[in-house]
Amino acid sequence: MTLLITNATLLPCTPEMPVIENGFVQIEGETITATGAGPAPAIDGAETIDVAGDIVMPGMVNPHCHMAMTLFRGLGEDVDDRLYRYVLPLERKFVTPEMVRAGTRLAALELIAGGVTTVADMYYFETEVGRVIDEAGMRGVVGQTIADFDPPDHATIDAGFALTEDLVAEFAGHPRVIASIAPHAPYSTDIAVMNRIARWADDHPGVPVQIHLAEMDSEMDWCAKNHGLRPVEVVEKAGLLRKGLICAHCLHVSESDIEKMARAEVRVAHNARSNAKAGRGIAPVEAMRTAGLPVGIATDGPMSGNTLDLFSQFAPVTMFQKLLGHSRKPMPGVEVIRMATVEGARVLGLDDRIGSLEPGKQADLIRIDMSAPRLQPVYDPYATLVFSAMPDDVRDVMVAGSWLMRDRTVLTLERKQVLRDALQVAARFKAEMTRIDATV
Amino acid sequence: MTLLITNATLLPCTPEMPVIENGFVQIEGETITATGAGPAPAIDGAETIDVAGDIVMPGMVNPHCHMAMTLFRGLGEDVDDRLYRYVLPLERKFVTPEMVRAGTRLAALELIAGGVTTVADMYYFETEVGRVIDEAGMRGVVGQTIADFDPPDHATIDAGFALTEDLVAEFAGHPRVIASIAPHAPYSTDIAVMNRIARWADDHPGVPVQIHLAEMDSEMDWCAKNHGLRPVEVVEKAGLLRKGLICAHCLHVSESDIEKMARAEVRVAHNARSNAKAGRGIAPVEAMRTAGLPVGIATDGPMSGNTLDLFSQFAPVTMFQKLLGHSRKPMPGVEVIRMATVEGARVLGLDDRIGSLEPGKQADLIRIDMSAPRLQPVYDPYATLVFSAMPDDVRDVMVAGSWLMRDRTVLTLERKQVLRDALQVAARFKAEMTRIDATV
Repeated sequence: MTLLITNATLLPCTPEMPVIENGFVQIEGETITATGAGPAPAIDGAETIDVAGDIVMPGMVNPHCHMAMTLFRGLGEDVDDRLYRYVLPLERKFVTPEMVRAGTRLAALELIAGGVTTVADMYYFETEVGRVIDEAGMRGVVGQTIADFDPPDHATIDAGFALTEDLVAEFAGHPRVIASIAPHAPYSTDIAVMNRIARWADDHPGVPVQIHLAEMDSEMDWCAKNHGLRPVEVVEKAGLLRKGLICAHCLHVSESDIEKMARAEVRVAHNARSNAKAGRGIAPVEAMRTAGLPVGIATDGPMSGNTLDLFSQFAPVTMFQKLLGHSRKPMPGVEVIRMATVEGARVLGLDDRIGSLEPGKQADLIRIDMSAPRLQPVYDPYATLVFSAMPDDVRDVMVAGSWLMRDRTVLTLERKQVLRDALQVAARFKAEMTRIDATV
Repeated sequence: MTLLITNATLLPCTPEMPVIENGFVQIEGETITATGAGPAPAIDGAETIDVAGDIVMPGMVNPHCHMAMTLFRGLGEDVDDRLYRYVLPLERKFVTPEMVRAGTRLAALELIAGGVTTVADMYYFETEVGRVIDEAGMRGVVGQTIADFDPPDHATIDAGFALTEDLVAEFAGHPRVIASIAPHAPYSTDIAVMNRIARWADDHPGVPVQIHLAEMDSEMDWCAKNHGLRPVEVVEKAGLLRKGLICAHCLHVSESDIEKMARAEVRVAHNARSNAKAGRGIAPVEAMRTAGLPVGIATDGPMSGNTLDLFSQFAPVTMFQKLLGHSRKPMPGVEVIRMATVEGARVLGLDDRIGSLEPGKQADLIRIDMSAPRLQPVYDPYATLVFSAMPDDVRDVMVAGSWLMRDRTVLTLERKQVLRDALQVAARFKAEMTRIDATV
């Protein structure tokens, strides 16, 4: 079966980042077979969708997320010690496979609605996350967290590895879900454990490794005090600073750290809103990209960043670099969209399959409705996407040739049921918070 | 005729900033006559609207805008010299009353759709702006620009004053449109002219004065070179630093400037996105508010900030202060919403009439649909509004007891016609830009 999408403002996100007016995309099954300008080829029996000038671009890539934490969105937002007062006690008490499923489904609804087709996740009971991504029809890299702080799903490191082995077994050969292992951070996963993960990863070459890295002042202090090193150096010492490591945050990276990271060929997931909301600072994205590091645009978990779409990140991503550079010039719109698509795919090691609209790649694409008055006029679609568009402008979403959303209705998840399940958990959280407030 | 809005999550924006569950608002004609918790009073013949738990809050106030510049939205975004290459030549050639009308109508559509009910504007042919605000049913403070740089609508300062007199005459006694005079900035309105405006304002006590102030490095340099003073001091020397002066930007204000501003009782319109997009820096909002200055949240013109709703400003406003303070604590969500409503009204000197939902105030209010998955769950409506809500969540908008929007359809402007007129102007801009590019 051939599908032709025609009359698009086509942003294929190929290296030159062209804007193709009256563009078309030809799809056979799950694969793109042709793209171009002008009228689409005439193909017998093909289904044709005329998108009337709307933007068609690759589905976006969110390379760092904690999907299940939708259930914590806005919880204790202005409470100074919310992590120790609410979040950790709630996680200890309530994080179960069922809770992870409920929160991840709510996240999947939001991600699809906002045009994100591929997400990298790190949380607990990660097999559940993979299952939800599978049922939602999305693409995902699902990372089982390994940490020392007695996390909700593994009392020992051995138990963490066992969960990871289950995850790897469940998704072996899956076309869209990739199992991953996720040492939490240099301060929360012992250096010996990180080294064990490095050796495990040697034996599992198809399993990406994700880590939180160089995110906080307290992490800098911890690494200095315990190892006399910077966070990047601790990870290096553990043998983990290696090709393909997906590093989230990377705020506190010096020139020499960036050199090490580039030499090691790691990748970076930039979480602009989450970092700024915590007052942590601005990651040196321009410097990292100049050094050749691929940098994707990520949302972090919704407790930290509150939204899971990338549109909410675009203006912060570029504004922060302009503020750092004290100039209007850094990080033009076209680079932001490159990061949200093909560069994000490179961060996850998936750029051979997704991230741009090219023959041979998977048909992961989105259609953006340009009719809202707040988007008009359009002089440059990249500027419009970065500074004016919002997740609600996404109209249709396709992954691997299958529609996940048409006319703003997500087809793969039962919206009402998903909301009902999520709000049930939130009600339990609220009751527990009331109990905590009464006790403390 | 009595209208009862019931079953609201009511945010009246009174000094304590309460959240009233199951709240009601009672409206007679254009005035709020009661608000409270629990079932609304039974009133014979009253129309009742059950909002099913949606947020009801004051219409928002955007205290600094150049509405007609919607037509320049995203134009030459990444072109370094876009101001001199495109914008000024286009303004000189195309700014007419018709162009101002077309651009301002597009802006009004966007403002209403995003829950802004009151806007302060500064541009040319400002009488046209006032007329559009009137026909749209909004509330506005419309400022005729006075500048030295031979602007499109006045070749001489005398001509600028004549336009202002016409504006004042046209809107004398208007219930929703307030004429204003707007010296452009310390570097673009001669100190003698600013002094003349100060004396004119003495004779027109009901006419607010608006100015761009302490926005740019180049302005600092200009003021130092020409007057040996800082921008705030130049305005003070001109006799304009006075009670009620609406100062847009105020990035480059020292402690001593802030003291002077507070003593003079000026007001501040903060333009977070616009300032950051230009790489100019972060205004010291916390310091200004601590000094007692009211600070409103503004969008600036859509050429600078690209959006006209306040939701797009909320995250930047609070993130920037958190970055400045290197902490999660500054500018909690509730303060952001205070600034967007009652404090914005105070900036425009309208807080006796609007900005909060209280008996005796004008019925300017909005209803926010909380059903989108990306808003759920809601632990704190202020956090949800600041970090998750978007303009498309605004469902209904009322000014002075009249609906401007119901079920996301703006009732006071013809959307299709407005878009058609705006795109016609944009097409002329594009043709001229092609000509410029071919010539230069």
